[in-house]
Amino acid sequence: VPADLHIVGAGLIGTSIGLALRGSRDVVLSDTDVAAQTRAVARGAGRPWDGSESAHLVLVAVPPRRTALVIDRLQRLNLGLTWSHVASVQDPVRLEVEALGADATTVCGGHPLAGRERSGPEAAVPDLFEGRPWVLCPGPTTSAEAVVAVRELAEQCGAEPVVMEPLQHDRAVALVSHLPQVAASAVAAQLLAASATGAVRLSGPGLQDTTRVAASDPELWVDVLRGNAQHVAPLVRGLAEDLAVLAEALQALAQDATSAEGRPLELVKDLLRRGGEGRRLVPVKAGAHDEDFVTVQVSVPDRPGQLAGILLTAAQAGVNVEDVHVEHLRGRPRGVVRLLVHRVSVGTAQAALAAAGWDVVTTS
Amino acid sequence: VPADLHIVGAGLIGTSIGLALRGSRDVVLSDTDVAAQTRAVARGAGRPWDGSESAHLVLVAVPPRRTALVIDRLQRLNLGLTWSHVASVQDPVRLEVEALGADATTVCGGHPLAGRERSGPEAAVPDLFEGRPWVLCPGPTTSAEAVVAVRELAEQCGAEPVVMEPLQHDRAVALVSHLPQVAASAVAAQLLAASATGAVRLSGPGLQDTTRVAASDPELWVDVLRGNAQHVAPLVRGLAEDLAVLAEALQALAQDATSAEGRPLELVKDLLRRGGEGRRLVPVKAGAHDEDFVTVQVSVPDRPGQLAGILLTAAQAGVNVEDVHVEHLRGRPRGVVRLLVHRVSVGTAQAALAAAGWDVVTTS
Repeated sequence: VPADLHIVGAGLIGTSIGLALRGSRDVVLSDTDVAAQTRAVARGAGRPWDGSESAHLVLVAVPPRRTALVIDRLQRLNLGLTWSHVASVQDPVRLEVEALGADATTVCGGHPLAGRERSGPEAAVPDLFEGRPWVLCPGPTTSAEAVVAVRELAEQCGAEPVVMEPLQHDRAVALVSHLPQVAASAVAAQLLAASATGAVRLSGPGLQDTTRVAASDPELWVDVLRGNAQHVAPLVRGLAEDLAVLAEALQALAQDATSAEGRPLELVKDLLRRGGEGRRLVPVKAGAHDEDFVTVQVSVPDRPGQLAGILLTAAQAGVNVEDVHVEHLRGRPRGVVRLLVHRVSVGTAQAALAAAGWDVVTTS
Repeated sequence: VPADLHIVGAGLIGTSIGLALRGSRDVVLSDTDVAAQTRAVARGAGRPWDGSESAHLVLVAVPPRRTALVIDRLQRLNLGLTWSHVASVQDPVRLEVEALGADATTVCGGHPLAGRERSGPEAAVPDLFEGRPWVLCPGPTTSAEAVVAVRELAEQCGAEPVVMEPLQHDRAVALVSHLPQVAASAVAAQLLAASATGAVRLSGPGLQDTTRVAASDPELWVDVLRGNAQHVAPLVRGLAEDLAVLAEALQALAQDATSAEGRPLELVKDLLRRGGEGRRLVPVKAGAHDEDFVTVQVSVPDRPGQLAGILLTAAQAGVNVEDVHVEHLRGRPRGVVRLLVHRVSVGTAQAALAAAGWDVVTTS
């Protein structure tokens, strides 16, 4: 009797999938690193693969470059009926599977959009995929059976399956994930110039947010950017070109700052306008955007419990706080707490907070 | 008897300063827009200027381009002893004051780093400057008396005075404020490409944070960028050049993705590494940086009160939560709450949350 699922690769993703399916699926686990396999098994992610057992679905969760080779090798040993993987870049794996002469009809690639800063079986958690998109990337010859097998797996892990062609997936993540990473790193890198020494004293939430992901692991990102270089390169070039045009326009304005109109000023306005339009496409909550939310600001002493009290007040008034941002005030033991609430709740929130004695300072 | 302070310009900044000083200083207010002046006076920001009264300090809070002209005109009428303004770009105002032949020795420019999305006297709030830097920008001939007058004003408004040369200030804000704004707008603008339609479904916190300030008011930013074009232009050009080099490196990798080493890969690694280094310079709390904080994640139903309960638990355990991020899970009524706590508190926070029955999912 074949196993339900064979997870090849006992890293963060493979082990987390095993943990998510614990108790509901018969999972076997393998890893060329026997110690990793043993630790994943010890954590309850599955039973150890015996080296010959076949499975209905073989999920290859190894680094992207080895993915196609592993699928090809195990297929030749007849160790699975349907096949998937979790590569963060999809089309190169599909092409390599075909180039190796493997049976592509039983392979449906997948990409769970979930991760952590840490790696390895110890970092695995069963709810890693909870509510996250899991992109299913069938190739042109992939069977419906293979797609269904991966869809069920994604759903059982708590993820939201999204079907995309492999190339469509690779272009999408280049735009919404890889380009912002590159931009954040490039902006943060500018801070290394000597002039930044005193300048960072003047920094605020804008710089903090714009550069946050620049703190990500460079080793991991080198691999991602290399893997999707084909789609990231033109986006980065487009960004560089937009910025070069803007730099030229600003240079023209610097030489004639009094010109109220003209082409350079229009170029600056145009970039800012397009940026605003683009930003409105970014969901801040499923189906909702910036303009649906209003910020309520409360000034508080910077000590334990203040945030809890504010949120308790909001909760007691029936207000759902969508997000919270805490700004610590430099040089003093106070902070400003910004609560993001839906615009229909803003009046209720303000009234309740003020009535409870909180220092509601501004609403914008 | 001259008034303590004459605020020229009853907009957001001028009116907020008046409100901050209410009860502690004798403030007169003027605005060429009589209706705005009347509304600011009605809000308690000061008494109306009688058209001839002089003041110890005249603070000109009008748009940057009119600032020097207003100082020059009022100086010629002998209406003040010391002078300041609030221009977001300082050196051009200083030069214009000199070019107009006004007395520069009594002028100390200033820039309170505070603002709101809304403008006008109605948007004014007394605590707008609370804990924010207020940069004092004396020129080479500015008297100590003028600097002291502005420093006292900044302190009375609750701000933290920082002294910088005007050019140093302009370069600093170009780097820590204007460049991130341009970058965020440029990244967000890329989302307007047709390919973004399906792609934003895959977006996560990275895109959200990197593009947040792209939602800022374009009218306001056109003026800021034009005013500081001289210093923003070379930074934007440097960013464009870094990105152009990266685009070329990625293009080379796309053509030979298997190359494990070589110059293109080194360029990609270098940008990511420099980005990480730059990010470490960005204060996330006065004197503290990313590496001092650890994120504790809790999975919760997406309904009122959950956030309050979590923070209450943390507070009861004596844990100061530095910041909170709420991620709503698409397609389901759940969310992940990320609490940023100092690394010394992480064990306490996790234990307390788990003991109280919260679903502590991952810590990274």
